[in-house]
Amino acid sequence: MQAFMDKDFLLNTPTARTLYHDVAAKCPIIDYHCHISPKEIWDDVRYENITQVWLGGDHYKWRLMRCAGVPEKYITGDASDYEKFCKWAEVVGKGIGNPLYHWSHLELRNFFGYQGALSAKTADEVWNLCNAKLQSAGYSVRGLINMSNVDTICTTDDPIDTLEWHQKLAGDKTFKTTVLPAWRPDKAMNLEKPEYLDYLAKLEAAAGMKIASFADLKKALAARMEYFAQNHCCLSDHGLNYVMYTPASGEEVEAIFAKRLNGGKVTEAEEAAFKTAFMLFVAKKYHEMHWTMQLHYGCRRDNNQPQYRKLGPDTGYDCINNYAPSSQTAAFLGALEEEGCLPQTILYSLNPNDNEAIDTICGCFQSDEAVSKVQHGSAWWFNDHFQGMTDQLVSLANLGYLAGFVGMLTDSRSFLSYPRHEYFRRILCRLLGQWVEDGMFPNDMELLSEIVRGVSYENAKKYFHFAKKEC
Amino acid sequence: MQAFMDKDFLLNTPTARTLYHDVAAKCPIIDYHCHISPKEIWDDVRYENITQVWLGGDHYKWRLMRCAGVPEKYITGDASDYEKFCKWAEVVGKGIGNPLYHWSHLELRNFFGYQGALSAKTADEVWNLCNAKLQSAGYSVRGLINMSNVDTICTTDDPIDTLEWHQKLAGDKTFKTTVLPAWRPDKAMNLEKPEYLDYLAKLEAAAGMKIASFADLKKALAARMEYFAQNHCCLSDHGLNYVMYTPASGEEVEAIFAKRLNGGKVTEAEEAAFKTAFMLFVAKKYHEMHWTMQLHYGCRRDNNQPQYRKLGPDTGYDCINNYAPSSQTAAFLGALEEEGCLPQTILYSLNPNDNEAIDTICGCFQSDEAVSKVQHGSAWWFNDHFQGMTDQLVSLANLGYLAGFVGMLTDSRSFLSYPRHEYFRRILCRLLGQWVEDGMFPNDMELLSEIVRGVSYENAKKYFHFAKKEC
Amino acid sequence: MQAFMDKDFLLNTPTARTLYHDVAAKCPIIDYHCHISPKEIWDDVRYENITQVWLGGDHYKWRLMRCAGVPEKYITGDASDYEKFCKWAEVVGKGIGNPLYHWSHLELRNFFGYQGALSAKTADEVWNLCNAKLQSAGYSVRGLINMSNVDTICTTDDPIDTLEWHQKLAGDKTFKTTVLPAWRPDKAMNLEKPEYLDYLAKLEAAAGMKIASFADLKKALAARMEYFAQNHCCLSDHGLNYVMYTPASGEEVEAIFAKRLNGGKVTEAEEAAFKTAFMLFVAKKYHEMHWTMQLHYGCRRDNNQPQYRKLGPDTGYDCINNYAPSSQTAAFLGALEEEGCLPQTILYSLNPNDNEAIDTICGCFQSDEAVSKVQHGSAWWFNDHFQGMTDQLVSLANLGYLAGFVGMLTDSRSFLSYPRHEYFRRILCRLLGQWVEDGMFPNDMELLSEIVRGVSYENAKKYFHFAKKEC
Repeated sequence: MQAFMDKDFLLNTPTARTLYHDVAAKCPIIDYHCHISPKEIWDDVRYENITQVWLGGDHYKWRLMRCAGVPEKYITGDASDYEKFCKWAEVVGKGIGNPLYHWSHLELRNFFGYQGALSAKTADEVWNLCNAKLQSAGYSVRGLINMSNVDTICTTDDPIDTLEWHQKLAGDKTFKTTVLPAWRPDKAMNLEKPEYLDYLAKLEAAAGMKIASFADLKKALAARMEYFAQNHCCLSDHGLNYVMYTPASGEEVEAIFAKRLNGGKVTEAEEAAFKTAFMLFVAKKYHEMHWTMQLHYGCRRDNNQPQYRKLGPDTGYDCINNYAPSSQTAAFLGALEEEGCLPQTILYSLNPNDNEAIDTICGCFQSDEAVSKVQHGSAWWFNDHFQGMTDQLVSLANLGYLAGFVGMLTDSRSFLSYPRHEYFRRILCRLLGQWVEDGMFPNDMELLSEIVRGVSYENAKKYFHFAKKEC
Repeated sequence: MQAFMDKDFLLNTPTARTLYHDVAAKCPIIDYHCHISPKEIWDDVRYENITQVWLGGDHYKWRLMRCAGVPEKYITGDASDYEKFCKWAEVVGKGIGNPLYHWSHLELRNFFGYQGALSAKTADEVWNLCNAKLQSAGYSVRGLINMSNVDTICTTDDPIDTLEWHQKLAGDKTFKTTVLPAWRPDKAMNLEKPEYLDYLAKLEAAAGMKIASFADLKKALAARMEYFAQNHCCLSDHGLNYVMYTPASGEEVEAIFAKRLNGGKVTEAEEAAFKTAFMLFVAKKYHEMHWTMQLHYGCRRDNNQPQYRKLGPDTGYDCINNYAPSSQTAAFLGALEEEGCLPQTILYSLNPNDNEAIDTICGCFQSDEAVSKVQHGSAWWFNDHFQGMTDQLVSLANLGYLAGFVGMLTDSRSFLSYPRHEYFRRILCRLLGQWVEDGMFPNDMELLSEIVRGVSYENAKKYFHFAKKEC
Repeated sequence: MQAFMDKDFLLNTPTARTLYHDVAAKCPIIDYHCHISPKEIWDDVRYENITQVWLGGDHYKWRLMRCAGVPEKYITGDASDYEKFCKWAEVVGKGIGNPLYHWSHLELRNFFGYQGALSAKTADEVWNLCNAKLQSAGYSVRGLINMSNVDTICTTDDPIDTLEWHQKLAGDKTFKTTVLPAWRPDKAMNLEKPEYLDYLAKLEAAAGMKIASFADLKKALAARMEYFAQNHCCLSDHGLNYVMYTPASGEEVEAIFAKRLNGGKVTEAEEAAFKTAFMLFVAKKYHEMHWTMQLHYGCRRDNNQPQYRKLGPDTGYDCINNYAPSSQTAAFLGALEEEGCLPQTILYSLNPNDNEAIDTICGCFQSDEAVSKVQHGSAWWFNDHFQGMTDQLVSLANLGYLAGFVGMLTDSRSFLSYPRHEYFRRILCRLLGQWVEDGMFPNDMELLSEIVRGVSYENAKKYFHFAKKEC
């Protein structure tokens, strides 16, 4: 029996242990997609207690508590932080098989030095230990990042963002981690939303111009992209229902946009045509600017409307949308390739059944512009667990070039989430170790180390065009 | 090498063996969804030979025999019971990897004490052994149920059913197992069927009222639900093509129903609108009455029409329908949640690819009304095997709260099928044991036992509102 | 640790090793579906170097090289054969987890006696070794086939093909392997293609008749089928987007065909109706002639149009199409069954998520005409790897009769690809061995050997109606 979550956690062969401890564990972290607040890094926020860090905004944990029948009072309600923590300890303590069990314990080990198992029984012990540590030096936001050996962070930012905090952080030589903005223009695309015209007004202000046509919108976006590029942005991100491809003429798209500007309601077909035009436009700009395009799709959001009205978005009420025609994804990328302006692209679907289709789509659009120019993104959100990561790696290895994979990201809102990179690397080393010990790949540690170092760190370093912070 | 299907079958670690033998094996069975006949329990039916028990109505076995090229004569035809058994022995004996292999041998071990392997070579030995036992005391239907330590059985019943046999069984203090009806109103919903109007006439008779409108239909159903509740029903069940959500106004639905009453042919869109209205109505009633709603979907039935005409439904000619938009499932549950009347719900899809989508949908609608109020049902029918059950458990653990799972059911027509609970429990203990021995969860036998006892028995006991039989 | 790809490759239990070495390895190969050229067999082609054999037309390898960022010059461009080989060696050497890694090394071991690992470091050594061997006696196309113990080969041929090379090979008593044509009439069906009318002109020439109606087309096809049958064809093959079922009247189908003949553009609905009629016609003919119908579907082809214009089809730019309604597949087979003329059928989907649906569809249409008359084809193309083959076997075992499976085929354009049968057989024996050693099936070597021999060779021999070559 392997010991419970000790230093060899998940490393069930000698090859896996060597690869992890000698190679993967030593690599810095590039967290090229996350949702943390640059302002909180600038402010170097501190936390009063572990509930604030762990349960303040973590809808993954909220979901699990709700699944366990915990009243909302103890989740997002007015129970005390201590009460909330005790409920969480009880639930996670019985959360066998759930990734939150492993994430929480990796965080307890790495940041707080706790080697035990969190449960109802140990809740007080952990509460006291963590809260004491959180008061000590080095447990501010920057301290937590430093402890995690983070090389580069890319946040997620709206086109109208001033990037004020990124600029301040760029100028602060005392903080070694590079913090870059990433461009997420969903609000500028989602014309079906009631708040769309309000958003356009803000975009007009940010771009310093009137938006009276789709041509204007493109001009305004281009101006903001330029601004983002000046602030060293080199990645974009999109949240799509699915990757659609419904081409329409320029006139048709202008007519749809005009209808919306005049307060009209667009049909589903018009929405698809407009969004296709929008995506084609920004993708070509990304190619021009050497940005990477990330497409996240397959999510149905805000399914529980009463809770949405109380708590807002991103509070644990989203689910997998299993509609994602691979033919449209291929057609969209094909249309860009046809014009010679397909940017570096990373595809993420929330539906794990899409793994193989994605890998075969990627294979159709590679070139020597980059190793694995079109990538299958790391197992996302509901797939971000032992099984999901393993499945993504196996599918990628079967159908593509695993050695070229840009690897893990946290996608997180929490400054304690960097151990997810460790979790991923352990799973990677376990898988490769297993293959070697099964005689499926030679025991060539030099080659294996190169692959592990690549997927853990070097590939992302080469693939993205990060401006290195001068310190 | 582990011995062939001995007492440690599937239990490949010490932790698994302890959990199974000390905890799971000792739990009574709650079979909350099956298709056995309450009349046969009341009559305490006996069987002449093993062919009658095993091959009389078991379309799982018939399918496997047909796959092996056995002529229909030996399946549903006029061959002798002995000949049929010999054919089955030959086929199952070579049925490596098929769940029927394990089910059959668990039944041979548990009910008949046979420890060998059934095949063409041992057919006679098994035939003689089983038939002798079937003549002995304790091998009637009630005897088989008693041998299986069954606490509670829920059958599947039509709204027009008199529940006569349930009433008789409820009054019989000599039989300890609680036998409850469950409500399955498919025939009242499927207005596209040619026999729909005939069915409505029967429903009118049962409810003692005229059905001249959808409002009347709802009244009649409410009356029958009341009757079912008086007979301690607390579960419903639906067989759907997929979980649809096509909302329509009350007037529209009445118009569709009126069209059908007048012999008109409803379009597919009208069918979806009517069924959505039907499902919303009954679901709200379930919530009001504290019943659990089971939704089984993703099946395409009666694909072989020549055989359907000869043998009727449920004879082995159904397949997986891979059309099941998760967005409509989420929208349907969301519409009920919006009105505050979502009942306890269990979702079962016949398509194993739906596992993850289902688990994420469940997570959107939990509350403190019950632990895991919205549940992902146990691997159903074509998924009811080692791989399918493991996949369902892993998906549920990854995306929900495995410790709150209500666990296994037989869904069976056979009184010998209770070892499927044993099969499930062995797989559960194997999985948890593996996680513990891999260092992925602490070796805390108290906690693990609580989880195993919960999933095997206690959770279902708490989740459903069974009236306990007074004996 | 198991040694790297030695004689016990993938055989991780004693049972697996016995089954493979004593049974599977001794079976001849029936390669009932491939794309090799009968002319090249007749010509007994020789190769100058390993690049010509390995990289001349192998789009699997091209894809992997492109994923690794190799410039097209070294793939299909004007780099020297030596340079191309070196690039390939470097890429495959780091191709951990990719089936090409295993295929390449099995080929190196079986044909060239090389036991090492191919990589950038060993490229020269392997280049020299292979090229020397290729010059020696026995390394012509016929030599490679002889080395592989191939009993029967079925090629893939167009209805207009003269079958000249098949006839010559049939008459050549010095070559022991039976080489049969297989009928692939895609070009006669795909009326949406611009080149359709040109093709019809060729078909008219081949059939010696005018094609002025769909009735004529059917007559012409029937004539060519007769010709193929005279040349011992007993299999057909179809490449479909998906298995569609859109029935239409004879008049409607004639009108669609007439429209196309007159240069009109058919709608998607018309295309589906025409193709349904086409497939129903040929399927009935297959039944009449005792041919097996193979349906390959779920592929979206030629996604990269710039590369398509440069390199043509089948050059590595295809992907999985995830649209394949199981209901239409079941309806199509059901329509044939309704008329009593469903032929032996093998279903292959490129989408691995279709495994379970396919197995349940097969189960609806079995009969005593053959063991597993309707078969789930071996893991195809993008699924033809360790994981994909294992998943297909497990799904088939769970839902059908694994012992009746007709097993592996290469689907290949290369004369070095026969070790894929070995790869499949090792995976089969590993899986069965694991089940036995886990106590899930008895250790009955007689029975297990019968199953392994069946799936490796005997089942295909019995299922297909091959004319045996007289030598």
